[in-house]
Amino acid sequence: MSLPTLAILMPGDMGHAVGRTLREHGHRVLTCLEGRSARTHALAEAAGLEDAGDLRKLVTEADMILSILPPASALPQAQDVAKAMGEAGTSPVYVDCNAISPTLTREVGSVIAISGAAYIDCGIIGLAPGKGTGTRFYVSGADTAPMEALNGKGIEVLALEGGIGAASGLKMCYSGLTKGKWTLQTAVLLAAQQLGLGDALVSEFEFSQQEELSAMRQRVSRLPADSQRWIGEMEEIAATFADVGVPSDFHKGAAEIFRLLAKTPFAGETRETIDTSRTMEESIAVYAEHLPKTPGTT
Amino acid sequence: MSLPTLAILMPGDMGHAVGRTLREHGHRVLTCLEGRSARTHALAEAAGLEDAGDLRKLVTEADMILSILPPASALPQAQDVAKAMGEAGTSPVYVDCNAISPTLTREVGSVIAISGAAYIDCGIIGLAPGKGTGTRFYVSGADTAPMEALNGKGIEVLALEGGIGAASGLKMCYSGLTKGKWTLQTAVLLAAQQLGLGDALVSEFEFSQQEELSAMRQRVSRLPADSQRWIGEMEEIAATFADVGVPSDFHKGAAEIFRLLAKTPFAGETRETIDTSRTMEESIAVYAEHLPKTPGTT
Repeated sequence: MSLPTLAILMPGDMGHAVGRTLREHGHRVLTCLEGRSARTHALAEAAGLEDAGDLRKLVTEADMILSILPPASALPQAQDVAKAMGEAGTSPVYVDCNAISPTLTREVGSVIAISGAAYIDCGIIGLAPGKGTGTRFYVSGADTAPMEALNGKGIEVLALEGGIGAASGLKMCYSGLTKGKWTLQTAVLLAAQQLGLGDALVSEFEFSQQEELSAMRQRVSRLPADSQRWIGEMEEIAATFADVGVPSDFHKGAAEIFRLLAKTPFAGETRETIDTSRTMEESIAVYAEHLPKTPGTT
Repeated sequence: MSLPTLAILMPGDMGHAVGRTLREHGHRVLTCLEGRSARTHALAEAAGLEDAGDLRKLVTEADMILSILPPASALPQAQDVAKAMGEAGTSPVYVDCNAISPTLTREVGSVIAISGAAYIDCGIIGLAPGKGTGTRFYVSGADTAPMEALNGKGIEVLALEGGIGAASGLKMCYSGLTKGKWTLQTAVLLAAQQLGLGDALVSEFEFSQQEELSAMRQRVSRLPADSQRWIGEMEEIAATFADVGVPSDFHKGAAEIFRLLAKTPFAGETRETIDTSRTMEESIAVYAEHLPKTPGTT
């Protein structure tokens, strides 16, 4: 019995790494490069993904489609795929792996349901496969077996109770802590810089917050590379929290920090091209140049 | 030459511990217990502070006054002291040690200036004296020598460049990180609880965020004891960040979390009476009961 044919839409940092590991574990892995950037073409080629040419062909040949996109693309992508499935008369399993709120994943699911395809909610936690300890794919929904069959193939797949929304909800909470913390650290360093207290604060951290400081030194300069994509993710987290009555301001602030970082020249970096010689202090000084000018600081 | 007579207004958790250590180092330490709570009386007595009876007597006998209060009391207290100094015709050095914004400390300073007294801005970082590694008193202003003379007397005193506002600004940034993080952790745990994902999130943290989880387990249950006092501190941090164009939403969210915790029955605990057998999960479940009811969760 041959393994199911999979498709990855679209193969960015995480997507192409997932595609590669699944291909290496014997799956045929399709993608659709129509209208995609040169970088996406290069990543897909490096991962050995097969270009299906167009969506209609992809939904005809794939048994299961994994959507791994920036949050804002989750819904439009599902609409395009549902349309293609309708035209092709096929219904491969559709897995939304995006960092979106439970509310939005339910909306995506209802778009897919029109085509008759099964829908799985999925939240990815951890670095891309091959970059550290296991990448965890949390999945939830009526039937998560097609995803669970991928467990151990370079990724870990864990099923959650609670139906559509549970996997996305877990991703929102997890990412709410990690990215919430990184942006909080950035905000605090920026405030100290603006108050002329950057050196004094770092000295105090060296005395009483060594671990936190060391984490900041490793992280703060790396944030612009992902900033554009993570604005939407923070907005999804804020929406998730607001939906259950928990303060959403932290992640509105986090989105604002990523919006600021996306304006800096470092936003053009990718994870591979980050200038690792740039210190935290140098990065903060450049970020600060892009803060809004406030009264009295002209 | 006898040591200067000091006064502490008002001797709460931090204030009475500071008073005690300075008394143990040979200073006469006054306070003013007029209209204060039974707990404040008990703390003052335990610390061996001398009750001056009223403010006018206190400003007559003290060479230097340290104000260590909840943020909302900083300005009214300075107004009362300035009035008493005017009536008594005295001008002891006034040190504002409160967790307030640079803007507010400058306002407090201008109130004190009317009386002709010297003003020192001070930000306290660390646990109360006697409870861990050194308590750092950062000080700034035209002449910080009277405070620097206390260095080594159970506290560490560090002078900062930058004039009035620098010491407060440093405290705001430092506390913005630590308390910002504790409230972010609380918000994330609350969201997971509300989504029915509390156990799943803790399991994932056990796998990939062990240190963070261990810090949360130590901290989350302790927050209500200080919640009432820290609402105002978070608002001061938000104001500080907004003044220099840095996103203030994180600390609006932090204030909201403390406002929630202040509504729980645990808000009546003091640092000494916290029920340390209560788990993080038990605390979160109780905090969640006080969240606003949202549409669909009635």
